[in-house]
Amino acid sequence: MKAEIIAVGTELLLGQIVNTNAQFLSQELASLGIDVYFQTVVGDNMDRLRQAIHTAESRADVLIFSGGIGPTQDDLTKEALASVLGRNLHYDRMAMDNIDRFFRGRNIPMTENNRRQAHAIDGCTPLPNETGLAVGNAIAHNGKFYIVLPGPPKELIPMFQNQAKTWILQQVLTHEKPIYSKMLKFAGIGESALETRVIDLIEKQSDPTVAPYAKESEVTLRITTKADSESEAMAKLDTLEKEIASRLGDHLYATGDIPIEKTIIDMLTELNLTVSCAESCTGGLLMETLTSIPGSGAVFQGGIVCYSNEMKEKLLHVPHDLLEGENAPGAVSAETAKVLAEQVRMIVDTDFGLSITGVAGPGYSERKPVGLVYIGISRREHDTLVLELNLKGNRETIRTRSAKTILYHLWKQLKEIADEA
Amino acid sequence: MKAEIIAVGTELLLGQIVNTNAQFLSQELASLGIDVYFQTVVGDNMDRLRQAIHTAESRADVLIFSGGIGPTQDDLTKEALASVLGRNLHYDRMAMDNIDRFFRGRNIPMTENNRRQAHAIDGCTPLPNETGLAVGNAIAHNGKFYIVLPGPPKELIPMFQNQAKTWILQQVLTHEKPIYSKMLKFAGIGESALETRVIDLIEKQSDPTVAPYAKESEVTLRITTKADSESEAMAKLDTLEKEIASRLGDHLYATGDIPIEKTIIDMLTELNLTVSCAESCTGGLLMETLTSIPGSGAVFQGGIVCYSNEMKEKLLHVPHDLLEGENAPGAVSAETAKVLAEQVRMIVDTDFGLSITGVAGPGYSERKPVGLVYIGISRREHDTLVLELNLKGNRETIRTRSAKTILYHLWKQLKEIADEA
Repeated sequence: MKAEIIAVGTELLLGQIVNTNAQFLSQELASLGIDVYFQTVVGDNMDRLRQAIHTAESRADVLIFSGGIGPTQDDLTKEALASVLGRNLHYDRMAMDNIDRFFRGRNIPMTENNRRQAHAIDGCTPLPNETGLAVGNAIAHNGKFYIVLPGPPKELIPMFQNQAKTWILQQVLTHEKPIYSKMLKFAGIGESALETRVIDLIEKQSDPTVAPYAKESEVTLRITTKADSESEAMAKLDTLEKEIASRLGDHLYATGDIPIEKTIIDMLTELNLTVSCAESCTGGLLMETLTSIPGSGAVFQGGIVCYSNEMKEKLLHVPHDLLEGENAPGAVSAETAKVLAEQVRMIVDTDFGLSITGVAGPGYSERKPVGLVYIGISRREHDTLVLELNLKGNRETIRTRSAKTILYHLWKQLKEIADEA
Repeated sequence: MKAEIIAVGTELLLGQIVNTNAQFLSQELASLGIDVYFQTVVGDNMDRLRQAIHTAESRADVLIFSGGIGPTQDDLTKEALASVLGRNLHYDRMAMDNIDRFFRGRNIPMTENNRRQAHAIDGCTPLPNETGLAVGNAIAHNGKFYIVLPGPPKELIPMFQNQAKTWILQQVLTHEKPIYSKMLKFAGIGESALETRVIDLIEKQSDPTVAPYAKESEVTLRITTKADSESEAMAKLDTLEKEIASRLGDHLYATGDIPIEKTIIDMLTELNLTVSCAESCTGGLLMETLTSIPGSGAVFQGGIVCYSNEMKEKLLHVPHDLLEGENAPGAVSAETAKVLAEQVRMIVDTDFGLSITGVAGPGYSERKPVGLVYIGISRREHDTLVLELNLKGNRETIRTRSAKTILYHLWKQLKEIADEA
């Protein structure tokens, strides 16, 4: 089964937005076992849109459209597809009601062009829009399959996951077993190191399959299987997950697509433990990351950004002799990281105190190289852990990696505590 | 003149990476006055790559390729294009030397496949790679133009800007005047409000042209003109910039593609002023934003994240009666924002103290609605400015907009100080 993704929108051709929909849909189709051979972007132009549909029909079985189904005269995707298929458009009743309700609820008069968003190609399955007004369309025609989705990712993603995927499983992949997959998330290990340790599983590529994905400081394995039932699938996936966990348990922090800071906030909450931070070179990034998780207030009360030496002394009581003087270790040192972590833990009165101090660049500092970073983890009634990192990359990368690395080491400690409990 | 962008790489079709090259190249081509009608993504497959080239030739004058020119057998872009054009490949001398030097410098033996990166289509202009090994190719053939660029953005961007653009100006746009443009950056105003105030200039679309672009909490106008000389172009652009500044001077913070935090760090440095922050709902985002700018240490020493009421009291001396009690204004209030800004300014001893306190959601807090945020700007020997914001969006958007809004208001104050000086 071959698919082509057609994104419609002049704003993409002008480079005003990046085509993240193509990435999302490609990942989803890959996980369904459908090959994507081409992605196309075409503007809001009837002739060129029809031409793109003809080209795609000549080389794919499944055509997935994103965008061009809004209220304006520029939105032509359904019109173009209907004309290529030789079908008419009608107004979908439920979508019309939804649009009416939206405008009545806001006491705004509905302009006529909004009715266009309820357009459905004759014979299609309408795909309800949970987060917007434009209804999606899915249609089988002469052995080919066509799915029309909205452009905004916040509408496209739920419509694909909750509506289109089911239609594909039921109408397109009828003769195939359904597909089940799990995301395993790893921290504290690079993509290539992780790959080396599961390369035999990746290369076997039988059932379940294993595919790695890398993002900044995070690596994901997606494990996928086809099975007649969910329980059969889960049994196969669980066996493989256990095998992977036995090799990489020190890095496998979650099953499911969640960031490590979410796992940490959940574990701290569960264990009834609290955390505070003293940040130098990351300038607030670590605390921003932790507080990006809703509910973080239960375990994080606050912390201090001590960018200058003066603030390290004044707010965190780092001894002057440690920071300055001919033989002083300096602000970027294991000694300072230790004091920062211990002091912030005591000042804010938390179970853990985290510290980061280093050289994020582009210039060096204290004659120390860019990428040299010390992290400290102080735990109530325990020795403080201090680690030296030698990171590569630009300022942004070094700051991100510093924050992700300390989160990884905090997770390891929390895991030990949870395992003991 | 019509162009098509062809990105080559199976990793794009699997959704492992997002096609930011297409966005970058589309923006650059738009600024050169070249229309992009289609973007295509094709995998590392000879037949389908040749097919994509034929399709693109049938509908475009300029074909720009990204990716598929690395050292492995999967990298087929130059081979496919050479075969379609009926030309041979040779090794480019300079690129070969560059590859040899790279491996000698690292004392690694060069494997034979690396020579592929020096491939050049007979008759092409080689485009040197400043940040990598694979040489680019530019070639005119039967009235069409072909440009082959590397896939990694850190190689593609400089190769386009420093090599390919010049080739396009000299070989493709020979009969046209060169194009000059300027980016004007605005803060504290939405895209539609800004558009309304310059709509006559946008709609005139004569010379120079005006095009708006929007990113989160930032709006950009790109003004573009064609002219025989740079001085003629700059005269035209300056006149238009003055007209725009006369209407939107309160929002126009920079000429050039820089974020507002960069302008602020530069202005503070210039004015010899310092800043500190007390953050509640943004949890460190404001300080992280300021310290993302190299050299921020000269004007920013540190600050405090006071996520809980306890920390607001303990670290920033907010009176208990202000925070708690039946008739207390609470943590999310103008009163608390004022104390936070003033206290952090005094504690860190800076010229400005900034504060943010609000409800970022998803749940409400103190029975106050999600999106209600107070920001405070305390200036030494001046009254403190406190503003109430009612922001829309999810947790991330509300936090980002809070930080960008306070930066906008700080910039306004700095501008007044600079204007007075």
